[in-house]
Amino acid sequence: MFRFERIACDAASKARAGRMATAHGVVATPAFMPVGTQGTVKSLSPDELEGCGVQILLGNTYHLFLRPGEELIRRLGGLHRFMHWPRPILTDSGGFQVVSLARLATVTEEGVRFRSHIDGAEHRLSPERAVEIQLALGSDILMCLDRPVGWPAPRAEIEAAERLTLRWAERCRRRWEDSGLAGSRALFGIVQGGVDAALRRRSAADLAALDFSGYALGGLSVGEPLELMLQTAAGTLPLLPEDKPRYVMGVGRPEDLLDLICLGADLFDCVLPTRNARHGQLFTSRGTIQLTHAAWREEAGPPDPECGCSTCRRYSLAYLRHLFLSRELLAYRLTTLHNVHYYVDLVRRAREAILRGEFAEFRNRFYRRREI
Amino acid sequence: MFRFERIACDAASKARAGRMATAHGVVATPAFMPVGTQGTVKSLSPDELEGCGVQILLGNTYHLFLRPGEELIRRLGGLHRFMHWPRPILTDSGGFQVVSLARLATVTEEGVRFRSHIDGAEHRLSPERAVEIQLALGSDILMCLDRPVGWPAPRAEIEAAERLTLRWAERCRRRWEDSGLAGSRALFGIVQGGVDAALRRRSAADLAALDFSGYALGGLSVGEPLELMLQTAAGTLPLLPEDKPRYVMGVGRPEDLLDLICLGADLFDCVLPTRNARHGQLFTSRGTIQLTHAAWREEAGPPDPECGCSTCRRYSLAYLRHLFLSRELLAYRLTTLHNVHYYVDLVRRAREAILRGEFAEFRNRFYRRREI
Repeated sequence: MFRFERIACDAASKARAGRMATAHGVVATPAFMPVGTQGTVKSLSPDELEGCGVQILLGNTYHLFLRPGEELIRRLGGLHRFMHWPRPILTDSGGFQVVSLARLATVTEEGVRFRSHIDGAEHRLSPERAVEIQLALGSDILMCLDRPVGWPAPRAEIEAAERLTLRWAERCRRRWEDSGLAGSRALFGIVQGGVDAALRRRSAADLAALDFSGYALGGLSVGEPLELMLQTAAGTLPLLPEDKPRYVMGVGRPEDLLDLICLGADLFDCVLPTRNARHGQLFTSRGTIQLTHAAWREEAGPPDPECGCSTCRRYSLAYLRHLFLSRELLAYRLTTLHNVHYYVDLVRRAREAILRGEFAEFRNRFYRRREI
Repeated sequence: MFRFERIACDAASKARAGRMATAHGVVATPAFMPVGTQGTVKSLSPDELEGCGVQILLGNTYHLFLRPGEELIRRLGGLHRFMHWPRPILTDSGGFQVVSLARLATVTEEGVRFRSHIDGAEHRLSPERAVEIQLALGSDILMCLDRPVGWPAPRAEIEAAERLTLRWAERCRRRWEDSGLAGSRALFGIVQGGVDAALRRRSAADLAALDFSGYALGGLSVGEPLELMLQTAAGTLPLLPEDKPRYVMGVGRPEDLLDLICLGADLFDCVLPTRNARHGQLFTSRGTIQLTHAAWREEAGPPDPECGCSTCRRYSLAYLRHLFLSRELLAYRLTTLHNVHYYVDLVRRAREAILRGEFAEFRNRFYRRREI
């Protein structure tokens, strides 16, 4: 089962609040998905994720395929059981990692041949295989194998990748339908086309015609200026079917999420909250804090007095700074927990503002606070 | 306030069960204290420690003195508040770390001069200073500054260290009494004397005459053969006042703890459960498990089916092995939690066996299981 319904639409923007029902439960949208690359959101337990209000996780097909292998996970009851996460999971297709992480990737019509970044072993990934792996993992939402390009890139390369992405999407869709599992697992198509408005428009239209469970914008936040990213999202999101969830992949900072919600996006994932936490950067209602800063040496207050996460309720900045400077494992955990809570809570409050018809005010307040 | 009472004594051995009341609550003895070196038991939260049944933590004076400094911790409300641990804390004196970790340590009658292992800065530690630092940290149980020697060492060196330890103990005791806090904070004396029975005897007798809140055996597990360690403990423990808690410092494996309980020890600390966990070694009722072993690749069962810890209740060996091989932060946390639970639970069950008058059977069963 997979169902998406819009519950409220903002009058002053394209923002919308919805509900996405999956085989492992309902996700209230807009929603932020923390990244659980290798079957774990780095440093956090599933209990802590639930405590942060996380509704859905993202898993990385590329990593899990290489280690421990999707067959092992399938035999052990699927990814949900393997990592003890009972709620929805969306998996990417591996398309992005194959070109960004793997070595010696060769792309043909058939698929991608590449060498593992772990042991150099050669592997192949095709649209069909990407779907099969995600089915073996037991993912609730599968992503089509796509062909992202970096920025900048020649128009011809962007166009070729966009066309290939479409043909691969057709093959993914066929394999998904043939699996007999299309009723319980969703499959999202991914729009490519770089920052070229015409290519994005064509990609969106052609994918929409294939009737996927949902649609994603891929190939953003790959080095292009922020304005181009937002311009592309603004031009493309309205072209996607209104009654399907819209997922902007791999973006971004808190303010980017609010901007994209404004443009009608429903789902997000990004490594920023987790990765930056491990580098001592905390997101707060007043902006970001760098833990190593000497100003926090004796600070008895929490990172964010307005935050209700278990880190802010228990610990001082002085303690967190001490743990971080001492390279204590607990440091990465407490900062990650705070940042994940911050992201999830920001998007949750944005949703509530949409439901109350006050999203514009909410966004203004967000910016005003950070100017203090 | 500090009070120790014996509740039950084993008929067939010197094992005893007791209660130790401190300013931050009661500790049922025998008890195992996980090591929280830098204001955290590596990777675990205080909630998890409580969940493991931990009653009391050990903090390292040397580390906290160097970073973040005891004055900062005092200003922020003491170590309990700093690390959000509301239960009892015992701090060592730094005597062991100064000779094992610090650089260029020079020992004189006055105290120790050394350079920090972190930044090379020169520091001094005297018996009085060691007490002052521990008072500033807000420790419930303070340890006297002692002078441990390695193994083997010339008798003259062992004897000199034993005598110096005694003179330092007198100075620690005076500083503690003068602080006006002796009513609420306990001070333990540390018996030295290497593996020399006569020196240990004299050390124990002279310290007992000074009337400390409790007594510890120091300078064990410093490289001597296991038999010598047990022989020394067997010879020394009975010489310590029966009505005071007896703490064997820095020992050891699960079987060593049971042996020492047999000899009348009440308190233990050791880095084995936490350090070995970070190296992928798990303690179980059947012996130890090395996570990297290929045998666990597809093992759907938990590390120890008899264990009730949250790791064993949730995760398969296959998942833990995957996390460990992937160097995921969650690996160190889940293994540490299990090992701490194992140690604390073993000692708790030993106590219950003493109370039931079945300690010998309990010990036999422990060994029988590991032979399976």
